[in-house]
This record gives sequence, C-alpha cells and structure tokens, in this order.
Amino acid sequence: MHALWLEGQALRVREDLAPPVPPPGEALVRVSVAGVCNTDLELVRGYYPYAGVPGHEFVGTVEEARGAPELIGRRVVGEINAACGACPTCRAGRRTHCEKRTVLGILARNGAFATRLILPIQNLHAVPDALPDEVAVFAEPTAAALELQEQVSVAAADRVVVIGAGKLGHLVAQTLAVTGCQLLVVGRSPRPLALLAARGITTATAEAIPPRGADLVVECTGHPDGLELARRAVRPRGTIVLKSTYHGNAQVDLARFVVDEITIVGSRCGPFAPAIALLASGRVDPRALVEARYPLADAVAAFDHAAKPGALKVLIDC
Amino acid sequence: MHALWLEGQALRVREDLAPPVPPPGEALVRVSVAGVCNTDLELVRGYYPYAGVPGHEFVGTVEEARGAPELIGRRVVGEINAACGACPTCRAGRRTHCEKRTVLGILARNGAFATRLILPIQNLHAVPDALPDEVAVFAEPTAAALELQEQVSVAAADRVVVIGAGKLGHLVAQTLAVTGCQLLVVGRSPRPLALLAARGITTATAEAIPPRGADLVVECTGHPDGLELARRAVRPRGTIVLKSTYHGNAQVDLARFVVDEITIVGSRCGPFAPAIALLASGRVDPRALVEARYPLADAVAAFDHAAKPGALKVLIDC
Repeated sequence: MHALWLEGQALRVREDLAPPVPPPGEALVRVSVAGVCNTDLELVRGYYPYAGVPGHEFVGTVEEARGAPELIGRRVVGEINAACGACPTCRAGRRTHCEKRTVLGILARNGAFATRLILPIQNLHAVPDALPDEVAVFAEPTAAALELQEQVSVAAADRVVVIGAGKLGHLVAQTLAVTGCQLLVVGRSPRPLALLAARGITTATAEAIPPRGADLVVECTGHPDGLELARRAVRPRGTIVLKSTYHGNAQVDLARFVVDEITIVGSRCGPFAPAIALLASGRVDPRALVEARYPLADAVAAFDHAAKPGALKVLIDC
Repeated sequence: MHALWLEGQALRVREDLAPPVPPPGEALVRVSVAGVCNTDLELVRGYYPYAGVPGHEFVGTVEEARGAPELIGRRVVGEINAACGACPTCRAGRRTHCEKRTVLGILARNGAFATRLILPIQNLHAVPDALPDEVAVFAEPTAAALELQEQVSVAAADRVVVIGAGKLGHLVAQTLAVTGCQLLVVGRSPRPLALLAARGITTATAEAIPPRGADLVVECTGHPDGLELARRAVRPRGTIVLKSTYHGNAQVDLARFVVDEITIVGSRCGPFAPAIALLASGRVDPRALVEARYPLADAVAAFDHAAKPGALKVLIDC
C-alpha cells in the first residue's frame, strides 16, 4: 500500500508496505482523508523519536473487523490510544494513559497517512452519513479541544481567554463558544483571528489581553512563551489549561503561580461522542480551517505546506 | 520599640521605631514569639523588594483593638493578608488575593519581628489557653500546610508523596497524615526525616520514590528542581501541589505535563481555624521542629542560623 513514512526526522512516500493485518479485536480501515496536526510536525522536528507512518486524524471505511462484522462498510473515525485494558491505569479508567498503550501514528503503531490502518474496534466511532469527510476528519482534534471541558467546568459567567488562534486554538475556541462563556481569543496574525470573528467570536492581539482578569486561560500557542502570556491573563486562583505540545523547555517562575494559587491543567485527547455530535449539529464547523488538500502521493509537500508559519489545516486524501 | 529591619537585603535590629498605631478596625498586638520562615530568608535573598520589619508567623497579646474591646488581653495568632474588602477579588471571596492587600512582614506592612505589630481585627484568631506559645506560633505555617486540602481532596486511598522534609514539608506531612492517606515523605538529609519517622510517617530518600505512582505529590523543596522530581513521582492525571516559593526560574518541559494530563496547583496561605484546632488537639505537633530560640536583640544571628543548610525552625522571643 501507499504510505507516508517518517524515519530519522525524514519523510518519504513508500509503496512497499504491506497492508496491516488486524489482530482479533481490531479493524482494518481504508483511510479516506487524514489531517496534518502540529504533533505530526513536532514529530518531524524530533519532539519524539518515532519511526513509522505518522498521522492520527482520519476518517475512513471499515473493510474488516475481527469480532464486529456489523462495522464492515461503516464510515468511522477513531480514538488514537490503543490501550491494554489490563494495567492498573486502564483498570482505574484512565485508558488514554495506559502505560502499555500504542498511539496511532505517534507511538509504536502506524498511522493514518496511508491507504489503510488498523485500530481496536472499541476505538472506532461511526460517523453520521450527513457528515462529510472534510468535517468528520476533525473529530479527533475536536475531541481534544473538548477534553478541557471534561477537566474544568466552564460556565456562562466565566471569562475565558484562548491564547493562539491556529488549528488547535480555533477548535478550542469554537467548542468553548458553545458553552456561552465570555470568550476572547488572542493571536498574532489577522487571518486566523478573522475566521473566528466571522463566527461571532471576540478576538484581539496579545497586547490587548486584560491583565489578571480571566477565570480560565487556554494555552494553544505551541510555544514555550505561551505559559507566561497565560499567567499574565489569568486571575488569582484561576486556571490555565495547557493544550499544546512542543519540543523544548519553558523558563517558568513557579513562585508566581504559588503566590497567585494558579492551577495549571495539562490536557490531551478527549471524548469522541460529543465531538461528533457537535460537528454533526454544525455548532462546531471547522471547514474554514482547511487551506489545502493534497493526494497521498504528495504527502511530503503537504507537510511542507503545513509547516509554513501561519498555515492552518492541510488535509491529505488517502 | 525594638524591631528587626530589612532594607536593601541587609538586616539590622533597630530601637528607633515608634510602636505602630492601629487605625479603626485594627488591633495592636504585643508579640511574644515569632518564627523564621523560608519566605523571610528569600526576602533577604532578594526574592521580593521588601523594606521594613519582616516576620509573619507570630503569637502575641492584644493591647488595643479599635472596635473590638473584648479582644484586649487575649492571646492571638493572625492571618497575614490584610484585604481591602471592596475590590472585585475580595467581593468574589478571595480575600487572601486582594489586589490591594498588604501582607504582614512581606508587602507594605511591618511584620512580627518586633515588640509590637498591628493587624486588622478580622485577621486575628484567639488561641486556647492550653496551647503554649511555642506551638501557637506554628498556626500560620500549619494553616498554609492545610491550604492544599482546601484545594485538592485527599482520601485515605490516595497515594501521596511529599517532597522536602524541611519546615514546610514537615507540617504538610503532619497535616496530611491526619487524613489517613498513604503518605511517603522524601528528603535529602536524615535528621528531618527521622523527626517524621518518629511520628510514624513513612520516609525515604528521593531515589526511592516509586515512579509515576502517586495520586498527589506536594512539592516543598524550595528549589526549582522540585517540580521535576514531582513530575517523576506523579501518576498520569495526578496532581502536583506547589507549596514553596523561591527566587529564580525552573526549566520545565511542559509537553510532559500535557501528555500525562498532570494538574499543578499553586498553594499559599490557608485556614487558621482548623490549624489551631489541630495544634490544640495535639494531632499536629510541631515542637520537634524547633531547633533554636533567640531574643529579638539577636534576630540577625537568628536569621543566620535559620539560613544554614538543613536548619529547621528558629524562633525569636520578642
């Protein structure tokens, strides 16, 4: 099959990989569309020593499902963490943190920039027929955006600042807007802010953040400076959610967080069912983020495009 | 009156200060005993540009109380944050974070290493007669230790690691032991660990921390490396409470906190009533921490003593 291959921080399209064979409990999915995420770009930059097929945002069709034949022919999206189900972490209900997990396109499991992938059947979620592929492919990052609402309560009276209006910040902002909270999104470049403003979301540049005023700040910059921006924006006893992962250390004056009793919450993968429901209802609509589509044969060019400063979502037709 | 004076990071005992005069709503307290805290030492190191009388852990007797004559003659301890009561932060119930606050011996309010101090009447808490001064003087740091239990729930089944067995770590450990949680305290030097072991608390050196096993880790090292030790100890989706404040930045690989969805909670001043009750009941007994007492005239020597590596609590008789 065709697949994009990452090894030693170099990308190439291969044609020599055999299609994966699902073990019992897993399904074979023919990938339709996959999205390039910042984590993919960070993997290429060496954030994590991964060798294999990258890609973890996808929509596709089940071709084989060992133990769930009713899934064959269904269009699905998939949770990316394949858990063992038996370790103490899994038994405690924290399956996305399974210590023995493989992660689609990130850790010991080939990913979605390929004609086919395999995932455990319990990771798959059927997609409503009315949801087009170019929306369904956003199920994974929309679920990740929703994760913070599983961790932190967000009420209509809350003053919430999202820092960063890129791919992730945009989805975080759209999912937060659904709560009716007092939302402000700050970013550096006008174009992504304009996309949010067009949806009625208030935007500004970082200089305009009200100091120490926000109940909740969500850091989506993908940059070590983001935490300091967030600290300036959050009120005493407020909460900062960290959504972005990147390579490198931040310099942090921890005493300030102690004195102001700030809570910092790391936030990663999230719940698919409400993400699919929000996308299906149209209350979250990510289509304006898509700025390019490439065929799988041109996946290296797709990554080059996605890595350009300010680039939004690049999709790959597999 | 006699007082210790800090200015330009230099300490000296002065005899030329006039006793403070309480404004309406405040009380004049004759200080009996005051304790040297790491924050005092950090002020001398330049953590914060404070000029004035340091000291914020005290027990004393009310001599004058404008608006509450029934307090005169009562032995009291006191909350250190004097709030305006009118700003949005105060009205939201976060008085210890008042944006206009003064803080005893720390911010725009002379402190406790003096024969007399003033504090708002509502900051004062009467001390039971049976509670000796050398225990009552620990009300403030015991309240600070209890603050984390206001912020994070601690249950008997929880695996809790306290990192740092100094003055603050010791009190945090004793207050956590009351919850019945599965407590482990780690530290570098044998002497403070032995004090905790004598109370039946399990101790170890940092190398013996079980990796990624703790539901809750409390960082009390007073050192930027403490957060990284805490990260290694906490389980995915676990919580790290930061208790210590110090001068300087930590290098933090934030992505690890995102991937493991760790929550970091800054924690400062806490509730006095339960602290006094725990000290009065004897369930928390800090007396083993006291390693020296100095008269106020020798307060500079007391600070020198307290600043020695591994020093525990130094008290000053005022």
